[in-house]
Amino acid sequence: MSTTSETVFDRILAGDIPCHRVYEDDHVLAFLDISPVSLGHTLVIPKERAAHLHELSAESASAIGRVLPRLCRAVMQATGATAYNVLQNNGIAAHQVVMHVHFHIIPKLGGRGLGLGWEQGSLAPEEAARLLESMREALAAEG
Amino acid sequence: MSTTSETVFDRILAGDIPCHRVYEDDHVLAFLDISPVSLGHTLVIPKERAAHLHELSAESASAIGRVLPRLCRAVMQATGATAYNVLQNNGIAAHQVVMHVHFHIIPKLGGRGLGLGWEQGSLAPEEAARLLESMREALAAEG
Repeated sequence: MSTTSETVFDRILAGDIPCHRVYEDDHVLAFLDISPVSLGHTLVIPKERAAHLHELSAESASAIGRVLPRLCRAVMQATGATAYNVLQNNGIAAHQVVMHVHFHIIPKLGGRGLGLGWEQGSLAPEEAARLLESMREALAAEG
Repeated sequence: MSTTSETVFDRILAGDIPCHRVYEDDHVLAFLDISPVSLGHTLVIPKERAAHLHELSAESASAIGRVLPRLCRAVMQATGATAYNVLQNNGIAAHQVVMHVHFHIIPKLGGRGLGLGWEQGSLAPEEAARLLESMREALAAEG
């Protein structure tokens, strides 16, 4: 869906830059974040080059989804964490730094871990109706 | 892997509580969050009852992964957002409120959207080695 430039993750995938590899299959690579928010912070990326999740193929996205529970169990076992966040950022405004899709698994360990700013609003019925119509149109247009 | 209590999402899945349904397939339901962090905030849940991602079957997790890119495109089209976060919280300490797996798609719209607290550390080589050994053991034990 879009042309995506090479990033540091392509160089890791190519083996030009080393990584602390946790897991690899035909579609997915997982490795330790070298600037962890908490110990055990793991990145899960598709081998397919795509900057954002909305640009990723269903096949790669499915492969990532499939392995996430296993990787979460491994992070929990290695760190002793019982709580964790899975986060995937898209766009600079949403805190994405490397323009290649990546899912963060971030254990909550004492005071360390992901901080969340969560200011909830309400959803007016007319807003909901408008959103639903537009989203269903978008989904239907893809077949 | 664990016994999970019924939550409000089971009642939504059963049709006992209405929702603003965006998408549904054999494994997945997506609907608008009624207390949105930003307009278009969408929840994506498995039909399988599992409290946390590490307890979800590979099949359900794969099905969620598969549909996430499509749903992100629909959220973008309906809201005009060009940036967004995908977030999945596990455990009360990690801000999970409903104890049934759910992925948030949260568009970044002006000042609205997900706030992130992101304090990075560094990863010492001996820490990395210890984590990798433990994570690979955990993965290998599952076969």
